[in-house]
Amino acid sequence: MRDVAIIGVGMNKWGELWEKSLRDIFVESALLAIEDGGVDHIDSMYVGCMSSGLFVGQEHLSSLLADYLGLNPIPCARVESACASGGLAVKMGFIDVASGMSDIVLVGGVEKMTDVSGDGATYALSTAADQEYEVYNGVTFPGLYALMARSHMHQYGTTREQLAQVAVKNHQHGSLNPLAQFPQKITIEDVTSSILVADPLRILDCSPITDGAACAILCPLDLAKKISKKPIVKIKGIGHATDTIALHSRKDFTTLNATVKAAERAYKMANVKPEDIDLAEVHDCFTIAEIIVIEDLGFVKKGEGGKATQSGMTALGGKIPVNTSGGLKSKGHPVGATGVAQVVEIVHQLRGEAGQRQVKNAKIGLTQNMGGSGGSTLVHIVERM
Amino acid sequence: MRDVAIIGVGMNKWGELWEKSLRDIFVESALLAIEDGGVDHIDSMYVGCMSSGLFVGQEHLSSLLADYLGLNPIPCARVESACASGGLAVKMGFIDVASGMSDIVLVGGVEKMTDVSGDGATYALSTAADQEYEVYNGVTFPGLYALMARSHMHQYGTTREQLAQVAVKNHQHGSLNPLAQFPQKITIEDVTSSILVADPLRILDCSPITDGAACAILCPLDLAKKISKKPIVKIKGIGHATDTIALHSRKDFTTLNATVKAAERAYKMANVKPEDIDLAEVHDCFTIAEIIVIEDLGFVKKGEGGKATQSGMTALGGKIPVNTSGGLKSKGHPVGATGVAQVVEIVHQLRGEAGQRQVKNAKIGLTQNMGGSGGSTLVHIVERM
Repeated sequence: MRDVAIIGVGMNKWGELWEKSLRDIFVESALLAIEDGGVDHIDSMYVGCMSSGLFVGQEHLSSLLADYLGLNPIPCARVESACASGGLAVKMGFIDVASGMSDIVLVGGVEKMTDVSGDGATYALSTAADQEYEVYNGVTFPGLYALMARSHMHQYGTTREQLAQVAVKNHQHGSLNPLAQFPQKITIEDVTSSILVADPLRILDCSPITDGAACAILCPLDLAKKISKKPIVKIKGIGHATDTIALHSRKDFTTLNATVKAAERAYKMANVKPEDIDLAEVHDCFTIAEIIVIEDLGFVKKGEGGKATQSGMTALGGKIPVNTSGGLKSKGHPVGATGVAQVVEIVHQLRGEAGQRQVKNAKIGLTQNMGGSGGSTLVHIVERM
Repeated sequence: MRDVAIIGVGMNKWGELWEKSLRDIFVESALLAIEDGGVDHIDSMYVGCMSSGLFVGQEHLSSLLADYLGLNPIPCARVESACASGGLAVKMGFIDVASGMSDIVLVGGVEKMTDVSGDGATYALSTAADQEYEVYNGVTFPGLYALMARSHMHQYGTTREQLAQVAVKNHQHGSLNPLAQFPQKITIEDVTSSILVADPLRILDCSPITDGAACAILCPLDLAKKISKKPIVKIKGIGHATDTIALHSRKDFTTLNATVKAAERAYKMANVKPEDIDLAEVHDCFTIAEIIVIEDLGFVKKGEGGKATQSGMTALGGKIPVNTSGGLKSKGHPVGATGVAQVVEIVHQLRGEAGQRQVKNAKIGLTQNMGGSGGSTLVHIVERM
């Protein structure tokens, strides 16, 4: 397999973009990544998108987006793994380059979520859970993650304030990100007094509904060294794993097995350990998710995620800053785009381009992107050469 | 890149399977392929599906299907390119094995299309076209292919009877396939007197709505030689290309540029010519599609597809039998499964297992699978070693 580098990244300003369509925001982000990468052509494309069928009545993004970028007849594939669709696109692009099939590959993610009315977004998102056994019985995602939160609180003494601190930290980070949807700083009191969604989770424990896209350009490391004028960032490890789709089939609600397995594989492939990671972007779709994930990635011991967050360990300036971009919570969560946007943030950080939210001397970064209630997970480890 | 073989194939009996769910039919097909391949584990999975979100309210098939096969935590990806989703899954599996990332890969396709009511299936299928510029103006797929048919008739003198002959031939072939949805033989008169859908296309020019799945097991050629007890079939060439999603952006309605480009790439990679192909499975979603496609694949000159069909050249016993399985027309067209089912048929033929529809001494086969009105196309060339 060939070594693979990321030579360009780009994303649009995320938010409720009623004046733009799915194709508009994808093309905007793709052109930013192409410009950033300084490439003059693309050999192949991968687009992560969870449910453009339900959100905007459009499948076949492979044809649509290659077309609107003026890139047909190049091969283009849409890939889907619920909220991990973006991370999956990065993996597919990696394999395409590593195998030698393609040299310069555009990987992107997109979701246009605000064009549906009523409970359309909640319904579309629920299709990431087990329709026949979970959704038909009335469960939606806040409820599923609330079950995890209650389990974690019961088993490890995680507190309401520790959950809130995840949101407070990520909004603090997001306030430094000009592309974030909700850059407002919030307090613990704001979170704990916000309206209840699914006990114990309140509205400020939940990531928002967002329109957004993010893209990256991958190529062989050798080629990157020749053509790139920026610090070279290499994809050092990839882990991809699945878990049961339904929560009721799992032995333990306080751990996410797909994250554990994907991390194991990524660490092994990259030949690094959790303590070698300088910063991470993780899937904080709900505050409890970040707490469980930083444990499952091995940054802290099982059960200590809440305490670690409260201690400032995962804040900018802490031992291992997590979600410097603002995370899903503050930056926004256009589900198919999230996994690629995580890579965009890490690349900016490793290149020293993260402005006010820069992590000093960041050399190795990790992304963790998961679908549904953790039924699928992608972990990427990237390193500045 | 490593050479890649297909060592197992399987598909369920297609039809209107109201008593089975999407997960049931996929698992049924996957177990048949695993048994046929004689493998004791799977390293990675790809599932092609066009729109389980719209058809059954279920995305995140990666997690669901790995789960229901008892295969988690293995990596699994759902891929989508409208009706070319199955072909795309085969390509992704090929790259995964070729790159060295995985050894034994399950590739499958599935669609459960009969659970929607009213015009639900027509709506779901329309999402493969350009929603904003085609569908909002009232065009659906029979209309788009009718435009191609009218163009081809006008430009090349293709006749109503030649279109009908595609359906007659494919139903004749399908009558020999125990897994086909509509194995009934039909006549030219049946087709030309069936109800009009979009002039000149009548209901018997159109492929049906189907529930079905199909799967195949890929592995490195070297491994196949060690473990397989059946004739070894190698993937010799892959071509994948895109075209504009909307018909109005094309210069010519009588050719499908993604098919032309994908075929060029596949022939080049396989180092073969159209005249080397012994049989083909092509995407006859409408009768006109098969006529245009056999021209674009180079089996006949542009404009002569109708005449060639009428002459028997593409029938069993002809120079190059096309759609011996019955094609989409008679076997059925569960959109995400079709591209994999094409591979299933070719593998059975190359191994000499096709029973009454066996093509004598078949050594090299080709599959052509396209999405929407040809906005994406996958071509695979496979050879018995």
